[in-house]
Amino acid sequence: MEDNETRKKIEVCFSPYLFPLFKDEFDIIVVIDVLRATSAICAAFDNGVAGLIPVSTIEEAREYQAKGYLVGAERQGQIVEGFDFGNSPYSYMVPELKGKTVVLSTTNGTKSINIAKEAGQVVIGSFLNLDVLCEWLEKQDKHILCLCSGWQNKFNLEDTICAGAITDYLVNTGQFRSEEDSSIAAKYLFLSAKDNILGYLKASSHRRRLKNLNLNEDIKYCLTPNQAPVIPILVGDTIQLIKESVSV
Amino acid sequence: MEDNETRKKIEVCFSPYLFPLFKDEFDIIVVIDVLRATSAICAAFDNGVAGLIPVSTIEEAREYQAKGYLVGAERQGQIVEGFDFGNSPYSYMVPELKGKTVVLSTTNGTKSINIAKEAGQVVIGSFLNLDVLCEWLEKQDKHILCLCSGWQNKFNLEDTICAGAITDYLVNTGQFRSEEDSSIAAKYLFLSAKDNILGYLKASSHRRRLKNLNLNEDIKYCLTPNQAPVIPILVGDTIQLIKESVSV
Repeated sequence: MEDNETRKKIEVCFSPYLFPLFKDEFDIIVVIDVLRATSAICAAFDNGVAGLIPVSTIEEAREYQAKGYLVGAERQGQIVEGFDFGNSPYSYMVPELKGKTVVLSTTNGTKSINIAKEAGQVVIGSFLNLDVLCEWLEKQDKHILCLCSGWQNKFNLEDTICAGAITDYLVNTGQFRSEEDSSIAAKYLFLSAKDNILGYLKASSHRRRLKNLNLNEDIKYCLTPNQAPVIPILVGDTIQLIKESVSV
Repeated sequence: MEDNETRKKIEVCFSPYLFPLFKDEFDIIVVIDVLRATSAICAAFDNGVAGLIPVSTIEEAREYQAKGYLVGAERQGQIVEGFDFGNSPYSYMVPELKGKTVVLSTTNGTKSINIAKEAGQVVIGSFLNLDVLCEWLEKQDKHILCLCSGWQNKFNLEDTICAGAITDYLVNTGQFRSEEDSSIAAKYLFLSAKDNILGYLKASSHRRRLKNLNLNEDIKYCLTPNQAPVIPILVGDTIQLIKESVSV
């Protein structure tokens, strides 16, 4: 194991609200919104979408719609009226989207992407691309922050456990270190949860909220690792698939 | 178990920085700063201190000193030059303080007390008064928030585990419910840690920071439950011991 001073940092920020306390120290920001924005983005690229433009507001989403884009918009877990789809990963697994650039606005996830992009290279993280993402991050030799999107600025369990999985992987390589207690807690929570993530999250407030919306299929998909082995990164204002060999 | 609608809330806020997202929904705020402000306050009252005035700034602390008070001040884990003591619990276990009203300013803990007092009845929590505090809270029939003082506005493990212990106790009575994922995570972290809190925290950044300051004796004391079975509450600007029978 290398000395503390030479290893790169891997840390976890629990919500966008806390991001100002972290933002100046990292090269790569892994944005995580497991239920469901970043899972949907991974599913979309795995399905052959060419590009995805994340926008923060419904107004921006409508402007893109007026220009002829296919546009998804979700608030409070539901599709906003007048839009083509919400943030269910299944909406993106359809032939019509292959090769297209689509637009997406969600309650938490796209906001996180837009605040993170001022601070570093944005990469999209979820359980769906966990292993391929970790292997790619390991090669970058950069300071990495996992930014959990949370729920309305508050901590949520599913994003934290996903961040804990990334932290655990990178710390175990011996090339990365975690100094923040938030990163250590995320790792502990992942290690407790990893053998049964769905069961572990059954008490989670967000899962209960989504269950009320009949989203059990979405939840099972979003919590199952490595079903969409892609690495989407933000280039300018558009999320694109990275070429495996590219280093940021 | 009662219905969700009638049970009172017990929730956990991970740091003062997040407090604006929580502050309007609670009657009682349990302020926790395990290492070391709220532990020191419990030790002080257990030792017979009559009152303790928490102040946020060094300037206020100096004003009280000029008026003849015994004043403690700590920043970055160390006693501020020119003050009588810092936030080591052992500083308060001396005969000179019995029956006195003292003043304390610390990096995180006294700031939390001062932001919490606008939002509800402030009660002092630590591992040192864990059981007596939980039993008292159970009787209050109020919405309760555990406010972790954290470290420089960020999450820390020791305060969260203490909050998780309180949450676990109250939820198990059947009279309280937790809806926030932060409260559920705090409970999970406590349940993982409870058989060996010191061992669990050995990776914690704050413990490492204090270890560098040679505070191992303080840490062991602060993490050992029920050594100072007192319930200090804020009345006006002064923390006092509650009479067991009094309800807030």
